[in-house]
Amino acid sequence: MIGRLAPPWDKLLLDARLVTLRDDLGAWGAIEDAALAWKNGLLAYAGPRADLPGEPAALAARIESADNRWITPGLVDCHTHLVFAGDRAPEFERRLQGASYEQIAREGGGIVSTVRATRAASREQLLAAALPRARALRADGVTTLEIKSGYGLDFDNERKMLQVARDVGESLGLTVRTTYLAAHALPPEFAGRADDYITEVCAWLPRLHAEGLVDAVDAFCEGIGFSPAQTRRVFEAARALGLPVKLHADQLSDLGGAALAAEFGGLSADHIEYTGEDAVRAMAAAGTVAVLLPGAFHVLRETKLPPIAALREQAVPMAVATDLNPGTSPLQSLRLAMSLACTHFRLTPEEALRGATVNAALALGLHDRGRLLPGQRADFVQWNIAHPAELAYWLGGDLVHAVHIAGRRVGA
Amino acid sequence: MIGRLAPPWDKLLLDARLVTLRDDLGAWGAIEDAALAWKNGLLAYAGPRADLPGEPAALAARIESADNRWITPGLVDCHTHLVFAGDRAPEFERRLQGASYEQIAREGGGIVSTVRATRAASREQLLAAALPRARALRADGVTTLEIKSGYGLDFDNERKMLQVARDVGESLGLTVRTTYLAAHALPPEFAGRADDYITEVCAWLPRLHAEGLVDAVDAFCEGIGFSPAQTRRVFEAARALGLPVKLHADQLSDLGGAALAAEFGGLSADHIEYTGEDAVRAMAAAGTVAVLLPGAFHVLRETKLPPIAALREQAVPMAVATDLNPGTSPLQSLRLAMSLACTHFRLTPEEALRGATVNAALALGLHDRGRLLPGQRADFVQWNIAHPAELAYWLGGDLVHAVHIAGRRVGA
Ligand SMILES: [Zn+2]
Ligand SMILES: [Zn+2]
Repeated sequence: MIGRLAPPWDKLLLDARLVTLRDDLGAWGAIEDAALAWKNGLLAYAGPRADLPGEPAALAARIESADNRWITPGLVDCHTHLVFAGDRAPEFERRLQGASYEQIAREGGGIVSTVRATRAASREQLLAAALPRARALRADGVTTLEIKSGYGLDFDNERKMLQVARDVGESLGLTVRTTYLAAHALPPEFAGRADDYITEVCAWLPRLHAEGLVDAVDAFCEGIGFSPAQTRRVFEAARALGLPVKLHADQLSDLGGAALAAEFGGLSADHIEYTGEDAVRAMAAAGTVAVLLPGAFHVLRETKLPPIAALREQAVPMAVATDLNPGTSPLQSLRLAMSLACTHFRLTPEEALRGATVNAALALGLHDRGRLLPGQRADFVQWNIAHPAELAYWLGGDLVHAVHIAGRRVGA
Repeated sequence: MIGRLAPPWDKLLLDARLVTLRDDLGAWGAIEDAALAWKNGLLAYAGPRADLPGEPAALAARIESADNRWITPGLVDCHTHLVFAGDRAPEFERRLQGASYEQIAREGGGIVSTVRATRAASREQLLAAALPRARALRADGVTTLEIKSGYGLDFDNERKMLQVARDVGESLGLTVRTTYLAAHALPPEFAGRADDYITEVCAWLPRLHAEGLVDAVDAFCEGIGFSPAQTRRVFEAARALGLPVKLHADQLSDLGGAALAAEFGGLSADHIEYTGEDAVRAMAAAGTVAVLLPGAFHVLRETKLPPIAALREQAVPMAVATDLNPGTSPLQSLRLAMSLACTHFRLTPEEALRGATVNAALALGLHDRGRLLPGQRADFVQWNIAHPAELAYWLGGDLVHAVHIAGRRVGA
């Protein structure tokens, strides 16, 4: 314990119960009667109180009791579309009144309506719409957030969405990772010319990357989205810039999307309900994370489960995310995504929490967070719970006592 | 508009959009460009601003803008078991690790563990455990709450639970309606002697009623609960005291529970997944409300849907409730119950909201709330939404701007 993490620490919490998620400990990597300390925004100590390297008063300027609360790493939501304008609730209502998807499309609904509203909104309006969603996620424990573009579908509006994603992070003190998803849907002006649109998507990427707006590149590879060949072109454009890729893969059918993501050494393959065992092996070999999105599964009332047993067997890291989006997953709580992952996919509560912390961080290429370990970012949440499994057990409720990001308490 | 509701009003809100749920208006009973006023805890005006009986300044001492927010009646959660001690999350985890219900019972889990913990808790401890749950419901728009006993299963502990239910109401300024549910499960000391236990249940009721602790009487009529004959004995004890009844009916099998509730003119039959059409007709004739509990349906991954089409056809009022309980419905948001009712049961968002307001009030025998009408209680919620359907559309999120109970803002 030398250098920048050596005492004196900025703050030391005693009487803590830690869910470290360390693999060398037992269930949950739990440590009871523990202490947690941080310095310069990084964890400096996370272990048994008895192993502290001295008397508390000699170690930190500020000492507090955690009142025996459980503390977990800050949650990481690694797949969201939370920047958008417009309101799809009336469409939700129309569906429940019996309207078909075709009728709704004829009435101007569906993703096209979100694209129209998002294009029409100013950067300020988009930010104002996005902030309450991001705030709700943070209030429920999220400290790192991925946000995708994909409702602009032209250069200026994809750029605007990525700028707003950055604005969200700055406004709320969250880490926001941006993902360029121009290959989300075919804009009306390119109807019948998907290959031409992909050419544009590939041309816009270096310009947006040059502005520092792109952390990763994604596509929607599906019968109703883009083909594997089109996806490959987008991935090659990303590779040329050294940008990592991830993919909306095999959600409604098996087009080989997860295998394609693995072939490109992708950070993650997301949804993957229809992914087969061979592709799971390819993901394992490539270190590609499986991002499970139970919100869309729930809302669409799907029945085909992702290949959980194969993922476990091949030790592919499983992440869980909200997929927060107005069409198929209007889900504003990562804890609720964890609960849905347990109920629908039969994840254990510990798998669900690892999926919303350390494995979600991996799906974003981040290795500096997701566990309570010295040297990791001091992003952590104190919870009003008696057992860590409560995080995936409760549907709703207010379980957060306090959220810290880089050692600073937020939103209190 | 005379007497106690005549101007001057306590307060007048302008620029409001009202979801009145009046039947004589169109969808949602919506009125845009509306005004809402109250006096002495009751609504005094709820209609178009243009129809106000004078200049605003002459009508109320305090005038405010609602900033074009949608306002609904306060939500009513008409079926909860939110007073309990102990923690069933570890059992949730054990199930997801593959343990069978039998194993969990052998390990001391299941409802018996909740009974043990609830009996061991003091009145103060029980209240401390219950308050965060009730606060979470209120933060999400609930202004009236039903709470059942049923984890005490002896005189003193059923009494303690009902007292704590009253304490919750007083602590949070909510209306709490108590339901006596001693016939919830057979306590271990009566193993093999269910009829003897029912004799005790019937004997305790008048004593608890004399203390003012009982607003209604309920039972768990099921193969794993009590028989229709035993339920009938409990209902007769209630009838002798003039107390209304309701019933956990036909959740896992059709024992004729809903029909039995109707026969006794019951306020509601709850769950009712297996209820047949004849029983639905009996409910319609008796004015018995159908209380739908999608939380338990979701958590237990049931597939048998309640008879929604028959309920609609027979015009049986449908309510939606959380069933908040530690075993089968750890659900702390009535909005989330509305969302689950739409997704799993295909209710429309408007049906879901009526189910969580006016119809839920009927299920509690309350006719003074659940709509925005002059003379009703001034229990209402201002929401940060663009369309009323958003209330059932979002999973999670923080949509509440302000909650008023009897004209007073709470929890702000
Ligand atoms: Zn997505
Ligand atoms: Zn119940």
